[in-house]
Amino acid sequence: MEKIIECVPNISEGKNREVIDQVIENLKKTNVKILDVSMDPDHNRSVITFVGNKESVIDGAFAVAESAVKLIDLRHHKGTHPRMGAVDVIPFIPIKNTSMEECIEISKIVGKKIGEELKIPVYLYAESATKEERKSLPNIRKGEFEGFFEKIKDPNWAPDFGPSEVHPTAGVVAVGAREFLIAYNIYLGTKDVSVAEKIAKSIRESSGGLRFIQAKGMFIEEKGMAQVSMNILNYKKAPLYRVFEIVKMEAERYGVPVVESELIGLMPIRAVLESLSFYLRFPKIDENSILETKIFE
Amino acid sequence: MEKIIECVPNISEGKNREVIDQVIENLKKTNVKILDVSMDPDHNRSVITFVGNKESVIDGAFAVAESAVKLIDLRHHKGTHPRMGAVDVIPFIPIKNTSMEECIEISKIVGKKIGEELKIPVYLYAESATKEERKSLPNIRKGEFEGFFEKIKDPNWAPDFGPSEVHPTAGVVAVGAREFLIAYNIYLGTKDVSVAEKIAKSIRESSGGLRFIQAKGMFIEEKGMAQVSMNILNYKKAPLYRVFEIVKMEAERYGVPVVESELIGLMPIRAVLESLSFYLRFPKIDENSILETKIFE
Repeated sequence: MEKIIECVPNISEGKNREVIDQVIENLKKTNVKILDVSMDPDHNRSVITFVGNKESVIDGAFAVAESAVKLIDLRHHKGTHPRMGAVDVIPFIPIKNTSMEECIEISKIVGKKIGEELKIPVYLYAESATKEERKSLPNIRKGEFEGFFEKIKDPNWAPDFGPSEVHPTAGVVAVGAREFLIAYNIYLGTKDVSVAEKIAKSIRESSGGLRFIQAKGMFIEEKGMAQVSMNILNYKKAPLYRVFEIVKMEAERYGVPVVESELIGLMPIRAVLESLSFYLRFPKIDENSILETKIFE
Repeated sequence: MEKIIECVPNISEGKNREVIDQVIENLKKTNVKILDVSMDPDHNRSVITFVGNKESVIDGAFAVAESAVKLIDLRHHKGTHPRMGAVDVIPFIPIKNTSMEECIEISKIVGKKIGEELKIPVYLYAESATKEERKSLPNIRKGEFEGFFEKIKDPNWAPDFGPSEVHPTAGVVAVGAREFLIAYNIYLGTKDVSVAEKIAKSIRESSGGLRFIQAKGMFIEEKGMAQVSMNILNYKKAPLYRVFEIVKMEAERYGVPVVESELIGLMPIRAVLESLSFYLRFPKIDENSILETKIFE
């Protein structure tokens, strides 16, 4: 039973294809399987998704960090997405035959190695966090690259690994273990973005809604519709069907129909089965009920 | 891109473990991957599920047929399930990077080989059928092993391959290509089997309901509930959600709630995604949206 761990490093370069190509070339020398590479020029940020066993994701994560530090100079970086490091964040996600505990262990091994060998201050975040206020990535990232030269002097913000000074061109990095994140949007049958904003407010954790949900209202030009744009940080505890049904219920209050769902990136088979179980009332259904899972296991 | 074809031979022995063990041992000499072996003593029948590429499923299907002919003597066979051959039926199902056309071609190769080398009359059925009345397996099987010695003399029932006389101990066999079949049951909140029977009648094709649905009403002692027991012969054209919602709607007419769904065996990921799309209004979602599919592709 092979272990499968996912790693999704975010690096602060989303425009220069050559840089990303070099990062990927270096990553390919390790034993990971690359699932996706998304460059976002507006955010000036790229997200690399790969999987592997314990040893290979450690090698892969370090390889990405090493290339990013060598190739990216944050002093010249501009983009709409907040960032604090050339390699900004490195999450590890348990997928198969592994556990959150093991991913925490991996994040610490990688964090220590990055701190010592690349001379970058490392903050353990999410499930790996050593302090409550480091669980939230936005909380760590507050002040961004430019602000960190001051922030790091605060004893509360002493890094978990690496030097106690910000790397002059590569900043700092967050490394941690977390659950698989599902990026999930719902389009509303209205152009009125204020409806989407009100619904987002009612469903997101930060305004008192569902735990593990981040949400904001947006207008999507291309579709001509308002959208509730969400991150589901824990799909086991905040299942897709519950998010959908609550958004639908809230939308009805404004006389607005829910037009369609949109998934950005991937979701695990368990998230799909959880929602199918709800609608079709399957008391037990899991990966072993799925033909393709049986074929590839 | 490796082709994946599924093959699900049914053989007429469900009590004698030694016979099944020998069949499986012989099957293991081929390059197929065995997913499941289910022995049913009441039916006195076993169902073997395996997958492989074109060459290996041809070898695997022939290996099972060869063992069954050698080890099973239908003259001494009794069971509740109708049967006409030692190896009763051999379906081929397109799973990945293949087509129904290719499975039809495979069924003809295997049928020809079984007819010529094992001296068993072979009937092409389902999508491979050469006549309308051979599409339905129950239609071919009518009269069973004992009746076939007469039936085969009718020019309408001349076999597609092999000798024009029934094999004295192994009978005849149906070989063909078909869609993946989902065995799907719905439990009702009543002990009254007549409600399940009425619902079954309203949903099944043979009584004028949904195409590709076989259904009957049953009482399930173990659960103390009536059940609508179904086969979905084409999950692409008769999706799970539609079957569930129609059964639920019909049940409401009798003031009976739908308690739970039950899957027997496996279902393909596409069947799950089709239903999720309906409930969550995903306009496009497919295997490429699923993490595990991306990992194993």
